[in-house]
Amino acid sequence: MFRDHLVRHGLLVETGVCGVYGRGAEFEDTVERVDRLVSATGAEDEAEVLRFPPILNRRHFERSGFLTSFPHLAGAVHAFQGHERTHVQLLRAVEEGGDWSDSFPPTEVVLTPAACYPVYPTLAGTLPARGRLVDVMSYCFRHEPSDDPARMQMFRMHEHVRAADPQTIAAWLEIWLARTTSFIGSLGLYARCLVASDPFFGRGGKLLADAQRDQRLKIEIVAAIARDDRPTAIISLNSHQDHFGEAFGIKTPDGAVAHTACIGFGLERIALALYSRHHFDRRRWPSPVREALGL
Amino acid sequence: MFRDHLVRHGLLVETGVCGVYGRGAEFEDTVERVDRLVSATGAEDEAEVLRFPPILNRRHFERSGFLTSFPHLAGAVHAFQGHERTHVQLLRAVEEGGDWSDSFPPTEVVLTPAACYPVYPTLAGTLPARGRLVDVMSYCFRHEPSDDPARMQMFRMHEHVRAADPQTIAAWLEIWLARTTSFIGSLGLYARCLVASDPFFGRGGKLLADAQRDQRLKIEIVAAIARDDRPTAIISLNSHQDHFGEAFGIKTPDGAVAHTACIGFGLERIALALYSRHHFDRRRWPSPVREALGL
Repeated sequence: MFRDHLVRHGLLVETGVCGVYGRGAEFEDTVERVDRLVSATGAEDEAEVLRFPPILNRRHFERSGFLTSFPHLAGAVHAFQGHERTHVQLLRAVEEGGDWSDSFPPTEVVLTPAACYPVYPTLAGTLPARGRLVDVMSYCFRHEPSDDPARMQMFRMHEHVRAADPQTIAAWLEIWLARTTSFIGSLGLYARCLVASDPFFGRGGKLLADAQRDQRLKIEIVAAIARDDRPTAIISLNSHQDHFGEAFGIKTPDGAVAHTACIGFGLERIALALYSRHHFDRRRWPSPVREALGL
Repeated sequence: MFRDHLVRHGLLVETGVCGVYGRGAEFEDTVERVDRLVSATGAEDEAEVLRFPPILNRRHFERSGFLTSFPHLAGAVHAFQGHERTHVQLLRAVEEGGDWSDSFPPTEVVLTPAACYPVYPTLAGTLPARGRLVDVMSYCFRHEPSDDPARMQMFRMHEHVRAADPQTIAAWLEIWLARTTSFIGSLGLYARCLVASDPFFGRGGKLLADAQRDQRLKIEIVAAIARDDRPTAIISLNSHQDHFGEAFGIKTPDGAVAHTACIGFGLERIALALYSRHHFDRRRWPSPVREALGL
């Protein structure tokens, strides 16, 4: 099993929770090198760099529509409210191995589901003529406990987010699609580029996924990680059309609702794909790959 | 106001939630440089490097005793459970601006309250003769919404964690106490070293704090950040005695319960102290400080 190998080589450390791992020194270093390669790939664009902690304003989250499409993946933050008596009850529940959520009502924040979510609210208002381009990277949470190490509950995503008019967005996505070829090529990964869809919730989800696919709104670069027969997305390019522009009041200088798009690199997944493709011993990776990563 | 200056200079970005900020490119770069200075300060110890996402196994969290001492600072992760009908109710609650926590029961994880918490469970069992030394860094969550930018709800902490017999622990803390002098000195900060206590919850908390202080179990390096008259801890050294050894079954080779201790550097706080002490324009920082940070 790929997962057991990762643990035995000290690349991942188990925590007793499905899909939640510590990272050994070398794995973390590989993730950081992949992160720097993403930065280098888009460097000429001189994107505005922003970094957010992995939590999001709950009101912004509600407005984003995530709960409509992906309630099953969301994580909300709850915190203690009460005085000494509530505390006694809390500790009794802990002692008895029970549920202590009664004294933990919701807070003003939720966990970030994708690195780009905190960006859209900051774009509210009228964009400059060239639009905006933001570089973000953060840990993201998806509640999908799985034994597959390529499907972690918390993982890092490095994204470029573009807001502008539809033509500018389309041209920008084309440029990044070409860049992903070089990115994948430099790492020697077996990967394929597919028209894809998001894992929408519920029975209505299939219709939404079909529509997304028909309009070619999501393109994924997939690679074999844990299993050869079920490749996993390591990069995705997403056209949101006017979805976030509408939700957060982002406008182009002519007063139209701005379009947005993003390209996201799954840093742990790319690192895992490297170990899966080349070897668990990083010293044995092919020299062009080592060179691309500055090893 | 210090906070307004930080926002005006693009160092911090507001998110609409008290104590939750985005980081501008330069501020993030300063945090990363402080992080590397922490690594350099302890480099000769060759600590084992581990990195965890900012979530923690809920069972480990319960066992750690955090809920006994600091329930008011804890954050728990809740996630959606239900099918289509629950989803309809959820969306209705969102639409009406209501509370949608009914369909979000607790998950197996909570937010990490300090970078060292995920380490102790991994130390369970018998330590090697020299004990263990682990280097961790992660975002941490503390539910204490505040206007003071030095009191963020999510911030990064870089820690060294030591597990061994009591004498080894005491000697290790002495070495780090000396190192903090050089660390602070190289950054030109006005700082003081104090015997301190944790913010224990409730009426009983005062007794616990007094006992902690009497036994000198917590030492803080404090510096002025937002206000000159109320310095904030930027580094803390903590002796846990046998608390975590007992909770997680960590033993020394002679079968005794191991003692643990940690030293934690608050990365955002140190960065903020630098901007507060030296200037909002980083180019004007004194050359020894710029040199220490590799600027």
